[in-house]
Amino acid sequence: MRQELRPPGTALDPAELAALDAHWRAANYLSAGQIYLLANPLLTEPLRPEHVKPRLLGHWGTTPGLNLIHTHLNRVITARDLDALCVWGPGHGGPAVLANSWLEGSYTETYPDVTRDAAGMARLFRQFSFPGGVPSHVAPETPGSIHEGGELGYSLAHAYGAALDNPGLLVACVIGDGEAETGPLAASWHSNKFLSPVHDGAVLPILHLNGYKIANPAVLARLPRAELDELLRGLGHDPLYVEGDEPAQVHQSMARAMDEALDRIALIRHDARRLGAEAAPRPRWPMIVLRTPKGWTGPARRDGLPVEGTWRAHQIPLDDVRDNPAHLRQLEEWLRSYRPEELFDGRGRPSAQVLSRVPAGPRRLGANPHANGGLLLRSLPLPPPADCAVPVDAPGTTLHAPTAVLGAYLDRLMARTAERRDFRLFGADETASNRLQEVYRATAKAWQEEILDVDEHLAGDGRVMEVLSEHLCQGWLEGYLLTGRHGLFSSYEAFVHIVDSMTNQHIKWLRTARRLPWRRPLASLNYLLTSHVWRQDHNGFSHQDPGFVDHVFNKSPEVVRVYLPPDANTLLAVADHVLRSRDYVNVVVAGKHPCFDWLDLDAARSHCERGAGIWEWAGSEDDGREPDAVLACAGDVPTQEALAAADLLHRHLPELALRVVNVVDLARLLPAGRHPHGMTDRDYDGLFPPGRPVIFAYHGYPWLIHRLTYSRANHDQLHVRGYVEEGTTTTPFDMVVRNDMDRYRLAMDVIDRVPGLATRAAHVRQRMHDVRYRHHGWIREHGTDLPEVAGWRWGRDRAG
Amino acid sequence: MRQELRPPGTALDPAELAALDAHWRAANYLSAGQIYLLANPLLTEPLRPEHVKPRLLGHWGTTPGLNLIHTHLNRVITARDLDALCVWGPGHGGPAVLANSWLEGSYTETYPDVTRDAAGMARLFRQFSFPGGVPSHVAPETPGSIHEGGELGYSLAHAYGAALDNPGLLVACVIGDGEAETGPLAASWHSNKFLSPVHDGAVLPILHLNGYKIANPAVLARLPRAELDELLRGLGHDPLYVEGDEPAQVHQSMARAMDEALDRIALIRHDARRLGAEAAPRPRWPMIVLRTPKGWTGPARRDGLPVEGTWRAHQIPLDDVRDNPAHLRQLEEWLRSYRPEELFDGRGRPSAQVLSRVPAGPRRLGANPHANGGLLLRSLPLPPPADCAVPVDAPGTTLHAPTAVLGAYLDRLMARTAERRDFRLFGADETASNRLQEVYRATAKAWQEEILDVDEHLAGDGRVMEVLSEHLCQGWLEGYLLTGRHGLFSSYEAFVHIVDSMTNQHIKWLRTARRLPWRRPLASLNYLLTSHVWRQDHNGFSHQDPGFVDHVFNKSPEVVRVYLPPDANTLLAVADHVLRSRDYVNVVVAGKHPCFDWLDLDAARSHCERGAGIWEWAGSEDDGREPDAVLACAGDVPTQEALAAADLLHRHLPELALRVVNVVDLARLLPAGRHPHGMTDRDYDGLFPPGRPVIFAYHGYPWLIHRLTYSRANHDQLHVRGYVEEGTTTTPFDMVVRNDMDRYRLAMDVIDRVPGLATRAAHVRQRMHDVRYRHHGWIREHGTDLPEVAGWRWGRDRAG
Repeated sequence: MRQELRPPGTALDPAELAALDAHWRAANYLSAGQIYLLANPLLTEPLRPEHVKPRLLGHWGTTPGLNLIHTHLNRVITARDLDALCVWGPGHGGPAVLANSWLEGSYTETYPDVTRDAAGMARLFRQFSFPGGVPSHVAPETPGSIHEGGELGYSLAHAYGAALDNPGLLVACVIGDGEAETGPLAASWHSNKFLSPVHDGAVLPILHLNGYKIANPAVLARLPRAELDELLRGLGHDPLYVEGDEPAQVHQSMARAMDEALDRIALIRHDARRLGAEAAPRPRWPMIVLRTPKGWTGPARRDGLPVEGTWRAHQIPLDDVRDNPAHLRQLEEWLRSYRPEELFDGRGRPSAQVLSRVPAGPRRLGANPHANGGLLLRSLPLPPPADCAVPVDAPGTTLHAPTAVLGAYLDRLMARTAERRDFRLFGADETASNRLQEVYRATAKAWQEEILDVDEHLAGDGRVMEVLSEHLCQGWLEGYLLTGRHGLFSSYEAFVHIVDSMTNQHIKWLRTARRLPWRRPLASLNYLLTSHVWRQDHNGFSHQDPGFVDHVFNKSPEVVRVYLPPDANTLLAVADHVLRSRDYVNVVVAGKHPCFDWLDLDAARSHCERGAGIWEWAGSEDDGREPDAVLACAGDVPTQEALAAADLLHRHLPELALRVVNVVDLARLLPAGRHPHGMTDRDYDGLFPPGRPVIFAYHGYPWLIHRLTYSRANHDQLHVRGYVEEGTTTTPFDMVVRNDMDRYRLAMDVIDRVPGLATRAAHVRQRMHDVRYRHHGWIREHGTDLPEVAGWRWGRDRAG
Repeated sequence: MRQELRPPGTALDPAELAALDAHWRAANYLSAGQIYLLANPLLTEPLRPEHVKPRLLGHWGTTPGLNLIHTHLNRVITARDLDALCVWGPGHGGPAVLANSWLEGSYTETYPDVTRDAAGMARLFRQFSFPGGVPSHVAPETPGSIHEGGELGYSLAHAYGAALDNPGLLVACVIGDGEAETGPLAASWHSNKFLSPVHDGAVLPILHLNGYKIANPAVLARLPRAELDELLRGLGHDPLYVEGDEPAQVHQSMARAMDEALDRIALIRHDARRLGAEAAPRPRWPMIVLRTPKGWTGPARRDGLPVEGTWRAHQIPLDDVRDNPAHLRQLEEWLRSYRPEELFDGRGRPSAQVLSRVPAGPRRLGANPHANGGLLLRSLPLPPPADCAVPVDAPGTTLHAPTAVLGAYLDRLMARTAERRDFRLFGADETASNRLQEVYRATAKAWQEEILDVDEHLAGDGRVMEVLSEHLCQGWLEGYLLTGRHGLFSSYEAFVHIVDSMTNQHIKWLRTARRLPWRRPLASLNYLLTSHVWRQDHNGFSHQDPGFVDHVFNKSPEVVRVYLPPDANTLLAVADHVLRSRDYVNVVVAGKHPCFDWLDLDAARSHCERGAGIWEWAGSEDDGREPDAVLACAGDVPTQEALAAADLLHRHLPELALRVVNVVDLARLLPAGRHPHGMTDRDYDGLFPPGRPVIFAYHGYPWLIHRLTYSRANHDQLHVRGYVEEGTTTTPFDMVVRNDMDRYRLAMDVIDRVPGLATRAAHVRQRMHDVRYRHHGWIREHGTDLPEVAGWRWGRDRAG
């Protein structure tokens, strides 16, 4: 879409200035009303203590600035017929966004009981931060929002994610000077090195310097102007400054800055799209720096201390209003200073002047469909997994790197979405390290800086997003998903903890959005955790942490899914499933090193459908008799060790009735009432018969398995091996030995736990013990694993 | 300490140039040798396949740059007698730091078997990334290091933390262009706004632009020079550029840049310390930008593809060397290109020329005591907790905000360390929000930007560190602790997840360092988690996450401690303990809202010593008879609800023999073999008698308690209530009701689980049920909690 270019420096005429100011005052009035008022919303009578809420909760400080920005976004959206979103970084200023949504009518369309009149205004006020009402922050409940802004740091990354592959979209993004101090936000400025002016929308950062955080001045707000300007230019922007505390002047300045910014964006787009990305000059994107007082237009002082323009305006500028008559009087003066009688008619409806620059229909910020991305979401044209599946004639005889096989699948998916451009792959400089590089056949890595001859797989229109920041990968992906697209984030397993807190927030968002009928389902956030704990040959202890699974299992079970495919085909089946799913956070853990193929694609699919099942071919159960022991496993390395243990036991103790169970969907272990994928006790007992010892080799920290199964009947018989935080730069087999999860240890565990077997099989056990001992000497001498381990194949020993 | 000023632009004379180049070549040779060689370390015979390691692991790409920097730091340390540390951000370039430590002799002093001769060189080579040897990264095992550089992002924050309160120290910090893309690093640049030129040391950032990460060009390396310069100036630095690929020219340029940087630092210090911080101009600190090729001096090409200067040099520039004769030949040529015969004598000892600029004794980077901070650590002059304890005549009748009481204690501690300056408090703009503001009586918040009249508690010499970045708080604190000082990080409970991964790394560091006899114990890293899940009245769901405790319990038990003091005096007792402790990560969870005082200081202390105990005064056990049920609790809000439940049960069911157990040290629940604080089964069964129902009200996610206790005898009788991820902006009591942890629910749980009681107490249970029902209506109407809840006091109902 093209925008009409207007000469810079345009001033508002008096009517437009008056209209914008009226809208701003109305929004400020409605914001303060939400924080304070329980009744008397239009101040038709003198304010009395009982009109005021008994608990005053909310954040006033940032609110007038947000209202100013919303007012001026309305103006340019209307004037230029823009398709625009706004990400409100200071989302704790919830009253502002709610007030604006109510003014423009999108709130009433979403929540019909909150009518756009005095009765609705009373409801709007009362419900805010009130039990049974709405949260004090921008939240999933807020129309037009894709960003809560509770945990600060992610606004700008969300904005860029929303802009990707939305070439007609403008994403304004308000960044508070507090949020600007966070690491993720500081890194997000460089997102402009990845945004294509041809294929992507534009992001307009609005840095709001109101001077203070909760209790301190903000670092950027106190920088000398020249230093701030260097910084923002160095970050690739052309800053436009809007500064002041006199409303009329600020309105004029803001209108000019908005016009100039949008003109420049239109020019950048025009050049890039006409000349082509290569020929056009590298853009320097505009941004706005808005410097206005914290708590602007609120009480100047309280009890003799300055409030407006200081950190004291952060939350409630006047407290104790019910009991302090002076504060009550001050509150009434403050509210009346907006002249509500000019802004709302006798029935509480906003005046025509207030609404004169408010956009219509889906152009309203509270009604833009991009902010309810499920409305725009289309199912992916997934390739048939069979096209990439590996043939498996016999289990455990061939090796494939699971993620490399997935790479081929993603390559096909990239090819199928080349025109639609609604799928992207995200990773912290690790797509190739994670062996997904086949995807570069169909697309490249997004890159807007210079490209040299020696570079590979870089292009302005690439759909693989790589930057050495998990925060950016996660933030971009969230923004992309929340606006109705699909994606996958591949990460080193240990370093996904970097985004623990972002994942928390996204899960909380999904859990709440799922309960709102008007929020349409989104594509799930899919993690591929690879380069995992067991194979950090290059990097060692710092790169070993399988605890992300534990982290997500603390969260709402309706949102969280965890898969541990044991081989390449199972990974394909899982990928095919998670890319179809909606409103979940799917965590898939899979290795990048060659790993034995156990299941052909059909078997893999039906195994994934069950989520956990007996691998009859791997066990030695007699018909009709319960097994002596169960060897269970979850994860690729544990499966290999468990099967090697089974192999040893079959060979040395052929009379032992052993069952092998593999778990791919970890939530299956939970009781049916605790998770939608949970197994009934009956099904669970069918897999793990009460009274029979279960030796469970698990990919991660072993106690997770205990936590998931603590209420099961045979829990006392469960013995779990996993990663117990022992590691360094060493061989793959030494890693499992150090953590007591190796094949010999597992086999010894079985011997130790089957009643009577320890004595009978003492010599077998001793030989296993000896191999482990021999291992320690061998690796110190040779630096490689024992030949019998390195050369092991399923069934070979048994046949021999 | 003063440094002699030298005129800028000094060139190296030929002898010094030759000496520096020899040192650099020696370090490069030793680095490549570590990655490749198993034998023949001095290349005294032609290189054969069996001289090469079977598994090639390590990172060559960054290594020559690190060696260059080390060589030139040696020069200026020697020339100026500097007390200096270096933080190696690209710590995966471990071979470089090991090579330099071996050259300067600090390695042999630390590990006498790795002698500074041919035999030792052979050991140095062999052990690298070899089973039983040393990790491939800089690690606790590496002399002179306080930073692993495995998970990238924290180098600069560590460097600033090391510099704080070390006015004589220079902390050089190498930042890779990959790491520079991370959020935490991007935020860390602003640390210079918190560093006092009077009281703190200097940080010299060296941004190493070698162009590529693992697989991609780096964002900063590809910026146009002018844009990069604006960025670094905007970040408050005066950059000095060293660029090239011709060694002699780069040596000259690097020497000039180092001299100029150190001269400027000396001037800044001199001005600030002579004129005073207020009068001196705000410093613009120097930094160095080093632009050299990735894998510099390594193989230019491999199999026809460029390696040197590209991402292909990141790890192993020549692979498959044992089996590929061409690669073997290339490796030998490469190694011989450093002319080892000039660098080492016939017995493998470094030549006098190589060592001519290496500093002596503790001035060596591998031997500086600041990098083994325990050597410098002094016990804190802790104030007596009794000075701040609150009087408790009867339990549950008075209220105090625990963190406010702790604030008074910390204030005294700040006063007692005013001269020593070895204790700091860290927090993300939340010290006052967390109610610790009494600390400002003794010190202020560190702030180097402009201070306005309206500001409070800001000063250049303040020892409270506040910035809106948990990453910076954590990184600074880690650097401060690792160099032998003390600190406390207070955080909103939910947002401490932002540093989950940093905590992982620090715990891994401590776990490894504890096993090294030469690493001396450090002060523990102490977290105060407050503004916790149950009291997010202002902020709601996004601010509710008690899962950090789960996160740390996955880590090495020898390092992790978790405390949940139930009231103010218990918090004081815990604080007194954790501030004395060494080499732990202590997580203390406590509320900032007024909470009932249960224990006087003596009782609090003995309760903390036990870690978990029966509160006889709160129960109703008969002598000699086992209780009918146990009500257990951990955390301030759960304790309040459990005691209110006990109160209800005493009043309505006086015949019930109820035991109340409070747990303050959560690891006590673990078995004795699993954690140093773990309880024996006998002690555990003494608290929680097998066969008796236990209703456990826990502060966080309930399944953690199951995980800690799954092997205990009475586990089947354990029923845990906690946070189950339900929340919004609402009242305190509504929060516990939403999560089924309220007093009525707990009392009903007891009734439901004591055999036979449900029938007998049906009417009592019904009344409790009714109150919960009434609560829902009440809060929706009034917005406040039920009067009987808000007005509850321990024992009042029983007496009445």
